[in-house]
Amino acid sequence: MCMQKVNLAEKFALFSDHWSPKIIAEMNDYQFKLVKVQGEFVWHHHADTDETFLVIEGHMKIEFEDHTVELGPGEMCIVPKGVEHKPVAENECNIMIIEPRGVLNTGNTEGGLTADNDAWI
Amino acid sequence: MCMQKVNLAEKFALFSDHWSPKIIAEMNDYQFKLVKVQGEFVWHHHADTDETFLVIEGHMKIEFEDHTVELGPGEMCIVPKGVEHKPVAENECNIMIIEPRGVLNTGNTEGGLTADNDAWI
Repeated sequence: MCMQKVNLAEKFALFSDHWSPKIIAEMNDYQFKLVKVQGEFVWHHHADTDETFLVIEGHMKIEFEDHTVELGPGEMCIVPKGVEHKPVAENECNIMIIEPRGVLNTGNTEGGLTADNDAWI
Repeated sequence: MCMQKVNLAEKFALFSDHWSPKIIAEMNDYQFKLVKVQGEFVWHHHADTDETFLVIEGHMKIEFEDHTVELGPGEMCIVPKGVEHKPVAENECNIMIIEPRGVLNTGNTEGGLTADNDAWI
């Protein structure tokens, strides 16, 4: 993986499930994960880390308690640690998430939408 | 910056100099930097950290001692710590670099191409 090209579109073509992050690369103890999102996720926070969302294709929203951020291709948003947020996408949206190794997608609210946090493609 | 949208194209429109990273966001102690590259950079390495290159627009190459990685839009490459590399772009290319706060663009070879490593836009 290191010192080789990673093509995001080719990686997105390898899976179709929603809300299930796939790891594509690591930088130090951080990971780059691709996720296809559609519908409403759960409100949650990550107690120990910030989390970066970068939209590659499509549109999504990140709802916060006091405002909503709307993101399209080439737009990013960093959610600070401890801040409640809920990702939402009316139509399927392809995003890249960047965060430390081992972070659970559902943060403090482990449940039905909690995905394997060690799935590489 | 946190909890707000960052539009990469709007940020790239704010500067025109080459090889001079502009910080657009921070996640924990990591920074997202936009850089316009054109021509040949210097061979260098970063002794203490990996470094992520993501091409947003245009094409570039990262030369390693034993191979070259060619990157276009939506393609990324992670350079492991300590590994000699030389970024090259025939035509102007817009990239995003992700690395820990404080990393110098020229790594171990501080010189004429060394840029301010605390320039925010």
